[in-house]
Amino acid sequence: MDTRSPGTCMPRQISTFPNFFKKSRWPKVWSNKANWIGYVAVSDDETTRCLGRRDITIAWRGTVTHLEWISDLMDFLKPINGNKIPCPDPTVKVEYGFLDLYTDKDENCRFCKYSAREQVLSELKRLTETYADEEMSISITGHSLGSALATLSAYDIAETGLHVMQDGRALPVSVFSFSGPRVGNSRFKERIESLGVKVLRVVNVQDVVPKSPGLFFNEQVPPPLMKLAEGLPWAYSHVGVELALDHRNSPFLKQTSDPACAHNLEAHLHLLDGYHGKGHRFILSSGRDPALVNKACDFLKDHHLVPPNWRQDENKGMIRNNEGRWVQPERPKLDDHPLDTHHHLRKLGLASEH
Amino acid sequence: MDTRSPGTCMPRQISTFPNFFKKSRWPKVWSNKANWIGYVAVSDDETTRCLGRRDITIAWRGTVTHLEWISDLMDFLKPINGNKIPCPDPTVKVEYGFLDLYTDKDENCRFCKYSAREQVLSELKRLTETYADEEMSISITGHSLGSALATLSAYDIAETGLHVMQDGRALPVSVFSFSGPRVGNSRFKERIESLGVKVLRVVNVQDVVPKSPGLFFNEQVPPPLMKLAEGLPWAYSHVGVELALDHRNSPFLKQTSDPACAHNLEAHLHLLDGYHGKGHRFILSSGRDPALVNKACDFLKDHHLVPPNWRQDENKGMIRNNEGRWVQPERPKLDDHPLDTHHHLRKLGLASEH
Repeated sequence: MDTRSPGTCMPRQISTFPNFFKKSRWPKVWSNKANWIGYVAVSDDETTRCLGRRDITIAWRGTVTHLEWISDLMDFLKPINGNKIPCPDPTVKVEYGFLDLYTDKDENCRFCKYSAREQVLSELKRLTETYADEEMSISITGHSLGSALATLSAYDIAETGLHVMQDGRALPVSVFSFSGPRVGNSRFKERIESLGVKVLRVVNVQDVVPKSPGLFFNEQVPPPLMKLAEGLPWAYSHVGVELALDHRNSPFLKQTSDPACAHNLEAHLHLLDGYHGKGHRFILSSGRDPALVNKACDFLKDHHLVPPNWRQDENKGMIRNNEGRWVQPERPKLDDHPLDTHHHLRKLGLASEH
Repeated sequence: MDTRSPGTCMPRQISTFPNFFKKSRWPKVWSNKANWIGYVAVSDDETTRCLGRRDITIAWRGTVTHLEWISDLMDFLKPINGNKIPCPDPTVKVEYGFLDLYTDKDENCRFCKYSAREQVLSELKRLTETYADEEMSISITGHSLGSALATLSAYDIAETGLHVMQDGRALPVSVFSFSGPRVGNSRFKERIESLGVKVLRVVNVQDVVPKSPGLFFNEQVPPPLMKLAEGLPWAYSHVGVELALDHRNSPFLKQTSDPACAHNLEAHLHLLDGYHGKGHRFILSSGRDPALVNKACDFLKDHHLVPPNWRQDENKGMIRNNEGRWVQPERPKLDDHPLDTHHHLRKLGLASEH
């Protein structure tokens, strides 16, 4: 164990991630507050028939190869209560950076007038009303930073009671998380589990991100010791059930010390594809193309003849304009917030009447 | 001046170039002997009318960013004579690596049954016969390694007398070379110039390649001293007339210590575009797009908003096959040698009757 004072532990455990938020070479076009991407989808009639229920899926995009994005958000634990998410227990704490990303907004910015939280809850409200007379479920997924946001939003939905229908039914809320870091303290774990949220955490045991933050005080420390550490701001805990994969079990992958490979989402999906239970042989089963693993990393053995990091746009998206000059294309006109966001937030008591 | 023994000079002057010919990760598909690319073209009727003559252009492709390709070919000077190019003077010497690349062949390889030299001379023979009754010129160009091959092939054409028509006319032979290294010794320079070959060497004075090989003994050493050094294998000389550009004169370019930027062909073309004579202001004149400079380097100032190294294929050329798998496409069926190569070489006395 590190013998330095606790205050100096944090920088060490994230020191494997280089700093990404350096000054951009290009003019700033996005707000700091909109540094997340996600969507809310709902199953169509055919999928609903297959599933046996109408599933609402919330997907949070994660970091692709820039592990540093996520490390920069891991700073210290902060009580949820008083931070725009209602929570009856002031000892329930989550990582400040994730909470901030989830709840922050900027009234003056067209694209972040509503926080991530408000956008998701408003759309969820709309969908649960639309399909109120059907059987429904809420599934939330994300990779890396997206995993943290998935866990946080699942908690929020359950804590806010948004999954409880007018007739008293509680919709099942599940999280399928990939290579996620710890999100909160052990009180957070107890709280989210007591609210009935089911979390399956798919991890690669070689990946450093799920080991962060909380390298020293986490759910693996014996409970009495953890009890003592509970008040400390660096005593983190994973939630839910872990599905532990190991990239050393795939004969398709080469040995590498690159942490971006071990953390790669496509690698996780490949490992899932070949996984048939602990101790069982690795056999690909779904026809998923192993070449996808190398889309954004250099992980496949060379004899598969798949180039590393092969996913790229032609000419980085540069195009020739009418005058024959090579330029970056105009940014597509993006939708900002749906017009009914405020309406649904008001119903949730999250917005004023005007 | 370096005080070490002459024998140790060579490694030092090429030490800025990392070694490129390391073991490939992919199976070897090309012969070592075919590590050059070039073409022979002839002006169409319209261009011929504009030029006032039928121009045959020989273009040698160079190295794009891999400076090391060229450094690996710069080894020591070797007499031309006795190396498949006729030369009456045994003291005329050129860089062994260039000579080797130009004359080497492999009877057992479909694509290099004929050497670069044989392919070029044979095609040139065919074209000069086709247009024998027209006014003609021969223009040879190349960048970097291509510049060395351009100079060598121009010399070869003149020495072989291929530019002399049956009626006694000698076609003008010109070289437009870009960022070329030195090719031979001062005897080579005298010989190629006495044969009437005109060479315009376009260089960027910040580029290290034109300073190689021959960092210590070259055409800038006072003639008496050079005379003494003449027999030494590292006494090189540039040929022809130099057009010296300087990338520090372009307001579009940023300061960089990257030797690949200073050596880049697109940067040279940009510098030519803005050049109006020594001491004159840099003003772009042809409408050439400065964005091209960044195709394969990171040289334009950031405010131009052109990403560095933007020239890239979509997904590195990977495609989805009929089964939905991502694969590298089949190599296109390539032509090897034109069927009449042997026929024209025989006319030149460079091939046996059978």
